[in-house]
Amino acid sequence: MNNAIKIAVDAMGGDGSPKKVIDGIIHHFQNNKNTYYQIFGDEEKILPCISSDLPKDSFKIIHTTEFVKGTDSPLEGAKRGKKTSMWLSVESVKHKQSDIVISAGNTGALLVISKLNLKMIENIDKPALSALWPNKKSMSVVLDLGANIECSAKNLIDFSIMGSSLFKSLYPNNTSKVALLNIGSEEIKGHEIIKETYQKLSESKNLDFEFKGYIEGNQLMNGDVNVIVADGFTGNVALKTAEGTANFITGELKKAMTGNMLGKISSLLNISNLNKFKKRLDPRLYNGAIFIGLDSPVIKSHGGTDYIGFSNSLSVCTKIISGNLIDKIRKNIN
Amino acid sequence: MNNAIKIAVDAMGGDGSPKKVIDGIIHHFQNNKNTYYQIFGDEEKILPCISSDLPKDSFKIIHTTEFVKGTDSPLEGAKRGKKTSMWLSVESVKHKQSDIVISAGNTGALLVISKLNLKMIENIDKPALSALWPNKKSMSVVLDLGANIECSAKNLIDFSIMGSSLFKSLYPNNTSKVALLNIGSEEIKGHEIIKETYQKLSESKNLDFEFKGYIEGNQLMNGDVNVIVADGFTGNVALKTAEGTANFITGELKKAMTGNMLGKISSLLNISNLNKFKKRLDPRLYNGAIFIGLDSPVIKSHGGTDYIGFSNSLSVCTKIISGNLIDKIRKNIN
Repeated sequence: MNNAIKIAVDAMGGDGSPKKVIDGIIHHFQNNKNTYYQIFGDEEKILPCISSDLPKDSFKIIHTTEFVKGTDSPLEGAKRGKKTSMWLSVESVKHKQSDIVISAGNTGALLVISKLNLKMIENIDKPALSALWPNKKSMSVVLDLGANIECSAKNLIDFSIMGSSLFKSLYPNNTSKVALLNIGSEEIKGHEIIKETYQKLSESKNLDFEFKGYIEGNQLMNGDVNVIVADGFTGNVALKTAEGTANFITGELKKAMTGNMLGKISSLLNISNLNKFKKRLDPRLYNGAIFIGLDSPVIKSHGGTDYIGFSNSLSVCTKIISGNLIDKIRKNIN
Repeated sequence: MNNAIKIAVDAMGGDGSPKKVIDGIIHHFQNNKNTYYQIFGDEEKILPCISSDLPKDSFKIIHTTEFVKGTDSPLEGAKRGKKTSMWLSVESVKHKQSDIVISAGNTGALLVISKLNLKMIENIDKPALSALWPNKKSMSVVLDLGANIECSAKNLIDFSIMGSSLFKSLYPNNTSKVALLNIGSEEIKGHEIIKETYQKLSESKNLDFEFKGYIEGNQLMNGDVNVIVADGFTGNVALKTAEGTANFITGELKKAMTGNMLGKISSLLNISNLNKFKKRLDPRLYNGAIFIGLDSPVIKSHGGTDYIGFSNSLSVCTKIISGNLIDKIRKNIN
C-alpha cells in the first residue's frame, strides 16, 4: 500500500465513537480502496467494531486509552498530553507517517494540538477554519469560520488563496470564484480592512481565481461564487445563522405538513419528492470543517454526525490529498 | 381627530408607489380607525388611488412632484432638497405635525434625511436600524442591521435598551430578554468590545430587561430571547444570510414538490397545510425596519413589498406610538 493515501484517524472523538468512526471507515473504503487508515484509540473498543469488509492490510490500530473529552477547554484538551488519541493522530502527520488527519472530537483542542505540532505554510500568517456550504448550483467553500476573530487584509487575502486552492482540490474541473462577505456590493461599503482587501485583490495580477468583489449574506447560496471569505467572527455568525434558519424552516414545514390527517396522507404520497428535498439539504453531505494554513490539512468531522457523515469527511480527506492542496497553496501564496 | 395617531407617509417610495402605499393605508385603516394620514407626494397620482373606504377626514395630501429615486446614493437623495416627498414627510415629524414617519423609498437617503432633520435622544450616541424576525415562539427584535459598522460597548448597551423598549412597545404583555450575538456562549468568547458589553450589562442593576448573555447564530430563531443585539456589520450579515437561506430552502422545496405529477397532485391535496407554512414565513408579516435613537422613530417599509406588507408597517407605526416608544427609551437610558 505504498502509494495509498494514508489517513490518521482519531477514533475516540464525537458522539458514538469509536463505532461511528469505524463504520465510517468501512463505508468510505467501499469506494476508496486505495486508502490506508492509521486508527488511534482504545483497541479493546475498536476491534469489535471492525468487520471483514475492511481488509487487514488496509488499516493499523495504534492503541491508547487516553483521549480528549468533548467538554475540555482547548487548553485542557491539549494538556491531557501526548498520549491522547487526538495528539497521536496529529503527530502521525507531523512525522509524515500519515498524509492527513481527521477527528470528530473537541474542535478547540484539535486546533490547539494541530498548531502546537504542525508548522504554518510559509508566508501564511494565520490558519483558517473552512467548510462546505450548499448553493443552488453545487457547493461553496466558506472561510474563516471562527479560528481568527480579528483579521488583517493580508489574512483575508491568504484565506482567498487557501479557499480557492481547497475548492480546486475538491472540484478539479471548476474555476474558483472568490468573493468577500460584506454588507453591500458597492466598492465603498464595509469597514476599512475589507475595503483594503478588495483594493489589493482587484489590483492583483497573478491570481489563481476570479475575484468577484463583495457578496451579501442573501446571495451566499446563489452559486454565483464558490469561495466566500470573511473574518472568523463574521463567518461563524453567517454559518450558524444559516444553520439556525434551515432548522427553523424545516421545523415549521414539518409542523405544517403533519398537523392533520390530510397533511399526513398527502405527505406520504409525496414521500419520494420530500426525500429528494431532505437529501439535498442533508447536513451529512457537507459534514465537517477543514483547518487550512498548516503544512498539513486537519479535518474536523462534526461530533454529532453519524457514520455516513464521517465517511463523507473521509472523502474530503481523500480529495484534498489527491488534489495536492498544500502544494497548490504553496504555489499561489508567493 | 385630535387624539388620532398622525402618520406622515412618503407616498412616492418603493416599487408600485403611490398605489401600493395608498392601498396599504386603506387596508390599515380598516382596523385602525383612530389614525390620521398625512400623505406626501404627487396629488395627481395619489388621488385616483384613493377610494371611499378612506373617509375624507382621515387623511390630507401634501402635494409635491419631487421625490428621491431608489437609485440615488444616500447623499444624492438628501441633496434633492427640501421639497421631496421624503424630506417633507420627515420634516412633518420634526415640526410635530405628525407622530411618526414611514417611507418605502431609498433606505440610505431616508437615514441621512432623518439624521439631518431629527435630534438624537439625549444620551444615545448612535441611532440603529432594527427589524422584526420570526422565531419558534413569536417575534424578535434584532439590531443594528447596518446603520453602524463599528460600535463601542456604549453603543451596544444603547441598542439593548432601545431594542428592549421597542419590543415592549410592540408586545406590551411580554418581558424583554436581551442577548448579544456572538460566536460562542461562554463568557470568554468573542472580541474585546462584546466582552466589555457583556461585563457591563451583567453588572448593571437597573435594567428594564432580562440580560441573557450571548446567543449564537443557530439559536437566533429558538425564541429563548426576543431582543438580539449586534454591531451593524454582524447584524446585517446575519439578517441577509437568514433571508438567503430561507429563499434557498423554499426554492429547493418547491423544486422537489412540483418536480413530477405525483408531487403536484399531493401538493395540491396538501395545499391548506402548505399555505399555513407559507403564511408562517410570509415576509410581509415582519416587513420593514425601524430606525431608532432619534427623537422620533422612522419606519422604513421594504421597497419591494405589496400593500399588505406596507399596511403591516403602518401597524408597527401605530403600536410604536401607542406604546410610547420614545418615552420608554428616555426613561431607561439614564
